[in-house]
Amino acid sequence: MKVLSELINSICPVSTELAEKIEISIKERIYKKNEYFLKEGEVCRYIWFIKKGLTRCYYTNGISEVCSWFMKEGDMIISVESFFQQKPGLESIQALEDCEVSSLKYEDLQYMYKNFPEMNYIGRVLTEKYYALSEQRLYSLRMHRSKQRYDYLMKHFPELVQRIPVKYLASYLGVTRETLSRNRRNRN
Amino acid sequence: MKVLSELINSICPVSTELAEKIEISIKERIYKKNEYFLKEGEVCRYIWFIKKGLTRCYYTNGISEVCSWFMKEGDMIISVESFFQQKPGLESIQALEDCEVSSLKYEDLQYMYKNFPEMNYIGRVLTEKYYALSEQRLYSLRMHRSKQRYDYLMKHFPELVQRIPVKYLASYLGVTRETLSRNRRNRN
Repeated sequence: MKVLSELINSICPVSTELAEKIEISIKERIYKKNEYFLKEGEVCRYIWFIKKGLTRCYYTNGISEVCSWFMKEGDMIISVESFFQQKPGLESIQALEDCEVSSLKYEDLQYMYKNFPEMNYIGRVLTEKYYALSEQRLYSLRMHRSKQRYDYLMKHFPELVQRIPVKYLASYLGVTRETLSRNRRNRN
Repeated sequence: MKVLSELINSICPVSTELAEKIEISIKERIYKKNEYFLKEGEVCRYIWFIKKGLTRCYYTNGISEVCSWFMKEGDMIISVESFFQQKPGLESIQALEDCEVSSLKYEDLQYMYKNFPEMNYIGRVLTEKYYALSEQRLYSLRMHRSKQRYDYLMKHFPELVQRIPVKYLASYLGVTRETLSRNRRNRN
């Protein structure tokens, strides 16, 4: 498991000054299982890098919750619109397991973007990566039925499928738990 | 209507050297109505900036087409995964009106990212903007019924709704033309 500084350096080697700025800006935190990183309506003021654990992102429609994605160790999390535009967001982010994370404040990141040009290289590469993953999910949501979406997850994210509680996986796939169980039986 | 150099300078003033590199790398092109920028299975080798006109992006499932979005003057277009990873894509991009565009090759953009640090600032800001828009569409697709999605488009993109042919708008909303017409009548 890479730590954040290794991940950053693997994208673009950084100057000693930037490495020091990152070092003093990053805060280590523990989120216990079920604790919230962010709730709907709040402004996402941090980018989190997960060192250990699993989280879910979800929306609510007033009655029920709809899981939009899951993040695990090695992933970076933000609520995209809320973080980029610093406005209240539609998403909630919750720990599904005890999580160890490194967090970086929006203002510190902007300071780095402004004062360390290479940080923009790193930010651009990471934004492209997560944008492409988001587009994959959008494609799957538009074009796949729930059975195909399950197969896609099993192929590309088998570990996530094993770790995510069934009710949240069913919510992500837009099916009942019973349908999900049937899909799983048919697959085995 | 801003031209591309104005858009870039409004995000971050660029050096004379970068301005010259952009100037010699950008190619102006016309795509006639119905002509393709990109077909499913091809690698997206360009980023296009639309100076005039309207395009649609769509997927196919072997039988029918599903419109994923529309881009008009002032927008930049790529097939996200295909462009970032330079691999064959799932998306087709077609002109719905005669289009005037400025195009920039993937290799030229990478050269600029490598040799002009400020280009990464610009690339990051633009990537964040389109990523946030994509997340809005993902939210709407997950949480809204077709009627709400139509209302959302009318509120945020009224000009697009007027310009897009009904069959493509219905495809984007995931409804029949008849349902779309009924939604429109009920709204007026």
